[in-house]
Amino acid sequence: MQRYFLNQNAEPNQRFFITDKNDIHHIKSVMRQTIGDEIIVNFLDQQTYRCKIVNITAEQVIVEAEAHLLIQSELPVEITICSGLIKGDKYEWLLQKATELGATSFITTQMDRSVVKLNAQKATKKLERWQKIVKEAAEQSYRQCIPQVQFVSNLTEIYDMIRQYDHVLMAYETSAKENERTLFKDQLRQLKAGAKVLLLFGPEGGFSEEEIALFKDVAMNVGLGPRILRAETAPLYALSAISYEIELMG
Amino acid sequence: MQRYFLNQNAEPNQRFFITDKNDIHHIKSVMRQTIGDEIIVNFLDQQTYRCKIVNITAEQVIVEAEAHLLIQSELPVEITICSGLIKGDKYEWLLQKATELGATSFITTQMDRSVVKLNAQKATKKLERWQKIVKEAAEQSYRQCIPQVQFVSNLTEIYDMIRQYDHVLMAYETSAKENERTLFKDQLRQLKAGAKVLLLFGPEGGFSEEEIALFKDVAMNVGLGPRILRAETAPLYALSAISYEIELMG
Repeated sequence: MQRYFLNQNAEPNQRFFITDKNDIHHIKSVMRQTIGDEIIVNFLDQQTYRCKIVNITAEQVIVEAEAHLLIQSELPVEITICSGLIKGDKYEWLLQKATELGATSFITTQMDRSVVKLNAQKATKKLERWQKIVKEAAEQSYRQCIPQVQFVSNLTEIYDMIRQYDHVLMAYETSAKENERTLFKDQLRQLKAGAKVLLLFGPEGGFSEEEIALFKDVAMNVGLGPRILRAETAPLYALSAISYEIELMG
Repeated sequence: MQRYFLNQNAEPNQRFFITDKNDIHHIKSVMRQTIGDEIIVNFLDQQTYRCKIVNITAEQVIVEAEAHLLIQSELPVEITICSGLIKGDKYEWLLQKATELGATSFITTQMDRSVVKLNAQKATKKLERWQKIVKEAAEQSYRQCIPQVQFVSNLTEIYDMIRQYDHVLMAYETSAKENERTLFKDQLRQLKAGAKVLLLFGPEGGFSEEEIALFKDVAMNVGLGPRILRAETAPLYALSAISYEIELMG
């Protein structure tokens, strides 16, 4: 059953108005749904309901929250993926895949070795597109919330934000080369439910020495295994490992 | 330093002839290397040497194996990723990323819900292209061998091959939905060094019931967490988890 997001908290048996144009188009024209059909709605408080369509007009689809679904598809920890600006198609692919894999939010920023440049004006347009990619991936992968995408102009601003996080990990290629194979797992095993984790990834050319130095006292440099992963692949390794460590039992 | 593959076993202080046209072009024209320069060569026996270029002609680059490098970038287990045929660009992404993440070989096959079709003639062309993608990804990610890509016409043929493998795991979406969260980790914890593992992934629409039934007695149906992963994402989750379980300590 198709899934949609509503920016309100859930209430059983209440009626809700879907007013997002893309959602309305999708319900009416793509899925060709009609009064009496059911859809799945994820609410702002991460509650998921099976909802019945009770009315459809040009401006809105009215649904009634019928059955609360006991679903928990969100990672028990909040993972922010901060990457250096990388080429557009690669970043879009990263956003889609990392959303499937459970990332809570994304920050992209100009780093010393970013080949791509982005000014504030261009960023606004890009963010709209990126947010759309993330929303679609969230629906498709049965997420219960839509990750947020931000553009921050440089890494110093990120540095100023780190107090918001319980753990800051920097994926440092050189760690992998030096046979550092313990820190990442050590860190994941310490994560408590609800922990806020900032994962930092460099652009195609990796972090500069200045960038490593800036975070030296606040971030743990972790290696992600012995192979060299591309900028868009490393976050997927990290997220998969986090899910494997925390969500799978055995 | 740039990495190349040679289809011969290593021997210290011996001379070797690089005759692959793409490699020669890369060494001469892309990297603009000359006599006396050094490159890294991965040999067939998964030994890696720093080699000095001793001669360059139109037909070959002659190198001398100078220093044995103590590198181990191959996963300690052999993972074959068998996927249902999926759309071309998605499969190419999968090949590139899964090579970075350590897959040993790839099989793609027509499955019941594959939208894409491939006949033997087209397959030959595709395989050439796929093999090139995998080779480049292997070089870039510092792999010590090049994964092989095969096309097999249907899943029954795969079924006939399964005696080659120590473990056969089928990524089954429904397992994840049913809160099956233990089998995959259980299986990975049992893997011994050198184990041959076949991982089966469906196409975009997943496995058909007949396909699940065919492998019922020989494969373990494992869930990869609570979110629905696309056909090209699930293998990356599995490979990352395998690396995390086996290669990282903590």
